[in-house]
Amino acid sequence: MNYCSNCGAPVTYCIPPGEDRKRFVCESCNIIHYQNPNIVVGCIPFWEDKVLLCRRAIEPRLGLWTLPAGYLENGETVSAGARRETFEEAKASMGSLTPYALYNLVFVNQVYLMFRGRLLDCNFGPGEESLDVRLFTRAEVPWDDLAFRVIRETLDAYFQDRDQGEFSFHMGNIEPDWITEAGKTGNYKS
Amino acid sequence: MNYCSNCGAPVTYCIPPGEDRKRFVCESCNIIHYQNPNIVVGCIPFWEDKVLLCRRAIEPRLGLWTLPAGYLENGETVSAGARRETFEEAKASMGSLTPYALYNLVFVNQVYLMFRGRLLDCNFGPGEESLDVRLFTRAEVPWDDLAFRVIRETLDAYFQDRDQGEFSFHMGNIEPDWITEAGKTGNYKS
Repeated sequence: MNYCSNCGAPVTYCIPPGEDRKRFVCESCNIIHYQNPNIVVGCIPFWEDKVLLCRRAIEPRLGLWTLPAGYLENGETVSAGARRETFEEAKASMGSLTPYALYNLVFVNQVYLMFRGRLLDCNFGPGEESLDVRLFTRAEVPWDDLAFRVIRETLDAYFQDRDQGEFSFHMGNIEPDWITEAGKTGNYKS
Repeated sequence: MNYCSNCGAPVTYCIPPGEDRKRFVCESCNIIHYQNPNIVVGCIPFWEDKVLLCRRAIEPRLGLWTLPAGYLENGETVSAGARRETFEEAKASMGSLTPYALYNLVFVNQVYLMFRGRLLDCNFGPGEESLDVRLFTRAEVPWDDLAFRVIRETLDAYFQDRDQGEFSFHMGNIEPDWITEAGKTGNYKS
């Protein structure tokens, strides 16, 4: 941020009076421009013993597999956002959604909120941001070709819970690959 | 938003190519300025059969009672944010936190995430944004003087779950007072 989005004057980066951390401040119109984490909402769409994954048609991680997810928009609920993303990326319609997992990605200022839910039917296919959309059993999941660590964590938790016959709400922190994968070859292997 | 925060040029409000809704767009430096919901994190701090409430020293709802909560900051996890807000507003330290309830406030583009947790001890008191901080049993809660509808919903759910001996994760939508309370006198009465 270089300029005030309200008046166009240059902003300064300083600790405003009464606050405890640096903010972008406009000294021309006296506005503090707060910057806060974003919410990413998504689904684990299941059908019988399979989950639906999308192969990414866009960067980052083009060609790798992911669960449908994306930024929550103003004016929508978290579950509406998760349904929208699932329809946009996989042309799939979801039955009822249950909040399943929340992950902090503090290194990119994101909070992921993932729902689980049954597909309404088997009508699905790639949206504009996907190359392919397919159902996978636990054994068939392309574990070495998942796009993001948060997706692997979500799928790991889901299949473990499912196979144990009991789902609980999960919360965790995701570290960036370049810290936890340092010195390793290949992505997302534990 | 009137000006581009990157280059200072005036922005336009239009549907960018490939998108499905209006955004603030800078045609000078070709940046799309996305605006997304904010996360509010907070706690239900309990001690024996009581919960800790704060009487607000600031607008809005100055003088009314609330649970400690506030905007999640960049660089912190949701539980760290909930602890920080509880310490700032009530000078109270929390034991372990369990995700308890998520509420959509789409009319203000906020998502509330509330945790429940035991107070570490009975050392607490008003922070700068509070006039008073006190423990209340269910019967003692100032139900008619709660600051926000989302706080009443959270407390209602908490005490119901507690008295039934089983906690589950809650999700709901909060409507603005001016819709659901239209024609009624007094705030927050069901």
